[in-house]
Amino acid sequence: MVEPTSRPAARLEIFALPDFPLVEAGDDLAGPILDGVARLGLVLAPQDVVVLAQKVVSKAEGRLVRLADVVPSARATALAQEVRKDARLVELILAESVRVVRTRPDVLIVEHRLGLVMANAGIDQSNIRHDGGEAALLLPLDPDASAGRLRADIGRRAGVAPAVVINDSFGRPWRRGTTGIAIGAAGLPSMIDRRGETDLFGRTLRATMIAHADEIAASASLVMGQSTEATPVVLVRGLQWTAPDNPAATLIRTPEEDLFR
Amino acid sequence: MVEPTSRPAARLEIFALPDFPLVEAGDDLAGPILDGVARLGLVLAPQDVVVLAQKVVSKAEGRLVRLADVVPSARATALAQEVRKDARLVELILAESVRVVRTRPDVLIVEHRLGLVMANAGIDQSNIRHDGGEAALLLPLDPDASAGRLRADIGRRAGVAPAVVINDSFGRPWRRGTTGIAIGAAGLPSMIDRRGETDLFGRTLRATMIAHADEIAASASLVMGQSTEATPVVLVRGLQWTAPDNPAATLIRTPEEDLFR
Repeated sequence: MVEPTSRPAARLEIFALPDFPLVEAGDDLAGPILDGVARLGLVLAPQDVVVLAQKVVSKAEGRLVRLADVVPSARATALAQEVRKDARLVELILAESVRVVRTRPDVLIVEHRLGLVMANAGIDQSNIRHDGGEAALLLPLDPDASAGRLRADIGRRAGVAPAVVINDSFGRPWRRGTTGIAIGAAGLPSMIDRRGETDLFGRTLRATMIAHADEIAASASLVMGQSTEATPVVLVRGLQWTAPDNPAATLIRTPEEDLFR
Repeated sequence: MVEPTSRPAARLEIFALPDFPLVEAGDDLAGPILDGVARLGLVLAPQDVVVLAQKVVSKAEGRLVRLADVVPSARATALAQEVRKDARLVELILAESVRVVRTRPDVLIVEHRLGLVMANAGIDQSNIRHDGGEAALLLPLDPDASAGRLRADIGRRAGVAPAVVINDSFGRPWRRGTTGIAIGAAGLPSMIDRRGETDLFGRTLRATMIAHADEIAASASLVMGQSTEATPVVLVRGLQWTAPDNPAATLIRTPEEDLFR
């Protein structure tokens, strides 16, 4: 029997970082994370995972766009009518996307330039400061790189670099409701490939590609709740992996292997 | 601001139940679960969630089928050739399904009679005892009912009825790798509907339907690992919800609202 690449953890703990401040463009995230960990009375350890809501990363990176500054194209205006959304928002969605995947009144599913198939290109209008007008928050430019930078920042200051996951709430084609998934990750295997390993009875495993970072993202979502900015960052402790690191982009199916795009 | 229906949990703990026995048809599950909780030194509390891998529930319910007993139809034989699978297995998959959704060499995605869109009708051949021949394990007949019975069983014996979730590993159309999702649930809201609630700034929430049981199932999968039967049951502690209970079937999109079936 081949040694599993990820030992089952005996116990997982997921801590909300208390009193995380509201984040604005240019804000440092590593500092408040380390403050939050300290307030919990914890010290970062290897294979700890810091999970951040996409929203705080996007805000820190200045991805907020005032709708008043957006001039919708004719295409956006027509599509906005079809999907019953603000034409300026649709303009932003199209600008962030490479393809429209499905439309229906109140539904606009696109392929984001990052390859993510998602509603509204992940553009969020909740929990956004308005500053005298409506605003929309775009995804980080490169969430895997954002996770890597933050991991390095924390590592420099704390002496230990935790893994970092950036999560977001996604709908699913066949299932109702949203779950947290990983749009960015660094310092851990986003996918664990167990092809070739065998089960208790020596059979080759069937579910052999595990979306490890998505499961971490979902577990973090449970703790973040989804109504307030009070807990946009959580610490996941107790995972043990030996598989090599790979970024969250690994979890995106290419169009060629996608039967449903 | 409307009071959230699910308060963010400050801390979530997920415990693997140690030394869970191998399960055979007819076995009681409540007893080993209570033994496992006791071995952890814990006492069940309201809003604890017991998550079981589908496999152990199916085995206890006698859903193991010997392939030697299966006679494939002409349709199964033809389809088996197309998808490069054992014709007897394909016969079982078709018998468990209402519709074939997608096929490709090595891929057979169906709509299970429960409404779940999934590969191979959820039929598993790993970690299955062979008893002198190959076998396949079908999903429980009614996983929500299975969860409800187990919840009642545990409640009778322990005086406290935890919520129960039955999870399974599912692939996703647009993303690689599998994550745990809930195929059965009792005693908790599988979906939390937050429509009408507002965010920190008074805007109506956008991601307003949360697949709560799927996020719990994914977090449990992290702890279960997926290579052995050593940890098919975990205890999730620290969730707090006030939304009404609904079964895992609530999470299945109806064909009418499904843009991708």
